[in-house]
Order: sequence, then structure tokens, then C-alpha cells
Amino acid sequence: MAAVYTPPVQTLIDELGKLPGVGPKSAQRIAFHLLKIPADDVARLATAIAEAKAKVRFCSRCWNVAEQELCPICADERRDPTVLCVVEESRDIVAIEKTGEFKGRYHVLLGVMSPLEGIGPEQLKMKELFARLEPEGVQEVILCTNPNTEGEVTAMYIARMLQPFGIRTTRIASGLPVGGDLEYADELTLGRALEGRRDVTG
Amino acid sequence: MAAVYTPPVQTLIDELGKLPGVGPKSAQRIAFHLLKIPADDVARLATAIAEAKAKVRFCSRCWNVAEQELCPICADERRDPTVLCVVEESRDIVAIEKTGEFKGRYHVLLGVMSPLEGIGPEQLKMKELFARLEPEGVQEVILCTNPNTEGEVTAMYIARMLQPFGIRTTRIASGLPVGGDLEYADELTLGRALEGRRDVTG
Repeated sequence: MAAVYTPPVQTLIDELGKLPGVGPKSAQRIAFHLLKIPADDVARLATAIAEAKAKVRFCSRCWNVAEQELCPICADERRDPTVLCVVEESRDIVAIEKTGEFKGRYHVLLGVMSPLEGIGPEQLKMKELFARLEPEGVQEVILCTNPNTEGEVTAMYIARMLQPFGIRTTRIASGLPVGGDLEYADELTLGRALEGRRDVTG
Repeated sequence: MAAVYTPPVQTLIDELGKLPGVGPKSAQRIAFHLLKIPADDVARLATAIAEAKAKVRFCSRCWNVAEQELCPICADERRDPTVLCVVEESRDIVAIEKTGEFKGRYHVLLGVMSPLEGIGPEQLKMKELFARLEPEGVQEVILCTNPNTEGEVTAMYIARMLQPFGIRTTRIASGLPVGGDLEYADELTLGRALEGRRDVTG
């Protein structure tokens, strides 16, 4: 007897185990951590979850996280509406914004196509993307999905769907990371780096 | 501008990042997952956290998680009070109970000695352990801390402290896992397995 946890602990472990990247062992570890730390610290976490869920919604234009109807980027009139960068998740926007290289607007798909997990275009903000093109006068769509299988499939799908629109469609470059080392690059990345080679003028 | 997340999202990421084994990237991933899933599912997680924290306390005798004054094991009169198994965490009790091999009681230290993290005997339920020995008539203490550096240090410390009590003190065996393979065993484990060899009668 007593080979399992008392019910509230088991429920907590089960709920934590549903989070992405949290396996049964991590869920256990997090649960016992929560039981051990001061109640105030736990309350802070619970409040953060509730507040974020209550206050944060998705931008009605680009599906970035937002506190208002529009996210700060869509609300910024200085951003160029003619260039649209398509990303999988809001966190990708943060990464791109940090480069300071992009002055256009974004479109967040809220996921990526994955036949294995049964995620097709209908599960993503795909028709919302196509609906934006004409009203906003988009002239270039930059496909910034991740350079992995799902990201490539999604990018190819969008590229094909965009053909009738006659809009310039580009894909971020794959290649060696800056500061990287030829010797340690995997052959796929190196192949992409060769394929995407550019002319250099001395 | 807008290179960081809107404040409720950032707060959520920060709070999630304090959980054990959750780095900044996982925290981000979990936060966006929570923002995307239905509010009901999030509420279930929040409730599970609050309920566990409110209902669960530590057994006043062995520091296992409990809903009553005593945990189910301590409350079970059929358990042998003369054998005491010392573990680091409640989750270790669940692992040992699953073997069905142990019929005694437990003592949870609620951690392990770790000079690097500034955790000494005072931060653990160590004096509570020594205080139990005489009143409960303990005749054997089995040191079941993990077979890693911190666990060994803790076991050695307890063994030394127990000497004046004249109580039999044992340590769980280290060795090759059942179903394991000599070839793939690390040399420390293999060394321990040799050291702990037993006579076999044919």
C-alpha cells in the first residue's frame, strides 16, 4: 500500500506532466520542489499564470502576443507594411527583433505544419495570412519558419499558395552559423551553405 | 522597440524559469504553450498547484508528503518500526515501495548534503532523524541516499553520527543494474560491483 502519491500530489504531477518538454520525472521533481518552497513563491507562480492568461491575448492582425487589440509592432506606424515576415511562434519575433535588421511586420502561424501530429494548414493562422496580403499592400513575404523538416514543409506550402498572388516570396538563408567551424558542421547545413553561396567582390 | 515580451508574459517566463530543470528556453516554450491552450486546461494546472500546496503537508514523523498528521506509511501499524530507511526525497519512498521488499518505516531528509550549494546537516531533517531512534526502538538504519557524491557524503555523515548509538547501519548496494552489460558499465560502477561481490554457492 501507499505505493503511489497522495491524490493532490499525483494530480499536480499529472498536470505538470502535460506541459511541453516536461516528462514524468521532471513533473515529479517540479511537484516536490513546489511542495518544499515557501507558499509565497508558489503563489507568485500561480498568479503569473493566471495574470498572463487573463491579460494576454493574440494581436488581431498578426497573432503575436498582445495586451491590446494590436501588438506593439502592429501598433507602431513606423513599421513597413509592405514586407511581411512569417514565423511559427511569438518567440521567433523576439529573436528577429533583437537583430534590429527587420523593419516590416510579422505574421505568427501559431505552430507549424506537422502531418505526424495531424497539424495541417487549417490548424494554423494560414487563411488569416492570405487575407492580409491585399488589404495591407504586402509586396514581399519572408518565410522565417525554422530550418527543419516541419518548417521547410510549411514554407514550401506557403510559397506554393502565394504563387497566384504574384508577391515576392523569400526564405531565410540556411548555412554555417557565424563563428562556426566547417569541420563540425553537419553535412546538411554545409550542403545548404554551399547551395546558398554568394558572389564576393574583392 | 518591442524586442522583449509584454510584461505579463515576461513575468510568467521568469517564474517558470525558477522551477528545477526548467531553463530560459523551456520556460519560454511552456509560457507560450499556456497562452495557446484553452483557459480551462490552464485553470486545472493552477488549481492542482494551489490544492497540492494547501492540502499537502509533511508527515510529522518521517517528513514524507502527507495529507494527515502522519503519512499513510507511518499510520500503518503493520510496518516494522525497528528498521528505518533514510531517503533524500518522498519520491524515493515511492520507488522503494514499488519493490515490495521493505516493510519498515522511512525518514525523508528533504534534500542531500551539498557543500557547493551550502546545504549542510542543519538544512536537512537530520536532528529529527536522530531524535526518532530511541523512542521508536530503531535497530537498523538503511542509508538509501543516491549513489552519487552528495548521497555518499550524506550517508557517511549519518553513519558517523550513528556510531555512538550502537545501531546497525547499512548502505544499499551499488553495482551493475539488472539486465545491464559489463561492456557499457562505467568504471566507477564496475569497481563498486567488484567491491561488493558476494559468495555464491553452487
